[in-house]
Amino acid sequence: MSRTLPFFENPTTTREEIMRATFLALCEHGYADLTIDRIGEEFEKSKSLVYHHYDGKDDLLLDFLEYMLGRSEERIPFPEGPPDEHVARIVDRLFQPTLTEEFRGFARAMVELRAQAAHDAAYRELFSRSDEFVRKQIAQVVRAGVHRGVFRPVDPEATAALFQAVFVGVQTQRVTADGTPVADARAEFERYVETCLLADGE
Amino acid sequence: MSRTLPFFENPTTTREEIMRATFLALCEHGYADLTIDRIGEEFEKSKSLVYHHYDGKDDLLLDFLEYMLGRSEERIPFPEGPPDEHVARIVDRLFQPTLTEEFRGFARAMVELRAQAAHDAAYRELFSRSDEFVRKQIAQVVRAGVHRGVFRPVDPEATAALFQAVFVGVQTQRVTADGTPVADARAEFERYVETCLLADGE
Repeated sequence: MSRTLPFFENPTTTREEIMRATFLALCEHGYADLTIDRIGEEFEKSKSLVYHHYDGKDDLLLDFLEYMLGRSEERIPFPEGPPDEHVARIVDRLFQPTLTEEFRGFARAMVELRAQAAHDAAYRELFSRSDEFVRKQIAQVVRAGVHRGVFRPVDPEATAALFQAVFVGVQTQRVTADGTPVADARAEFERYVETCLLADGE
Repeated sequence: MSRTLPFFENPTTTREEIMRATFLALCEHGYADLTIDRIGEEFEKSKSLVYHHYDGKDDLLLDFLEYMLGRSEERIPFPEGPPDEHVARIVDRLFQPTLTEEFRGFARAMVELRAQAAHDAAYRELFSRSDEFVRKQIAQVVRAGVHRGVFRPVDPEATAALFQAVFVGVQTQRVTADGTPVADARAEFERYVETCLLADGE
């Protein structure tokens, strides 16, 4: 089984190879124990190339984050088709009962990188941009659903803001606390969608 | 204005003094740049006392986390009085429009410490215990509300799981991304409470 995510497969440039090596090293060692040397161990070319491209760990990680957020944004399906089915797909992806080893590694790395944003303005800028992008995508789906009469006449921005809080919460909790009741949270979130969002809800 | 949270005021033991110094150093430097020396700078007694009590930064931070989670658990008001008013207080506390500097420091430190749990079993054990405690408290309030007919006949555990996902999400987002629409998320969460939880909702 692949050790990485689809967008790290088949790197074609040195930058992409370094991004892949960074991902693998982050999954294995975590943010705190990550070093350029450890990234070099996952890199198929000479370690010195990593030092040639980046000033240090922070410089590399910021580029990695920008790369990863870019790929994540690309992976979000463009809102098309029935809005209610789109919401169902979002719910399915968010509340998967079990995470594959690769996706767990990715989720852990994102939680650790996001935590850097608490004290680092450059990280915060990237997460602010990414959060805003995701919110706008969700709001667009909700707006389309209201327009088509599939959803109740709700506020798309407010709905997107709560959706995102739940996403960040579930993603953070499931890799930082054992026994997080993901299925319970999903059941209640689905009740919320049916009751508060869908036009043919109760 | 005080630089700390209520439970760090007036330390009476050396451990409490070290906990207070750790809190101040964490707020100022963040997790990644924290050192025992920097904790020592916030400590009113000899730095060597810190080294005497703890094996190193990780040892000290785990004790700090255990101390802080314990105090947080104590601060959660014991579920008494009308359950709907209790939920309103929880919502008020969670979605405060602005955070005081101290509370922002505390929230940042918690996000950074929680992120350690992604790769550290000792941290994860503490957050698992704390999350479970909070969920049980919320479920108890919901159960009481259902019993008294103030809430609809909802599943207390599922409701508590979603509440907690929202808490963790909002707390994480607001210190890691600028422009997090806390007021929007609150409006939608209140709509959820009114529609899905309160017995006299629509």
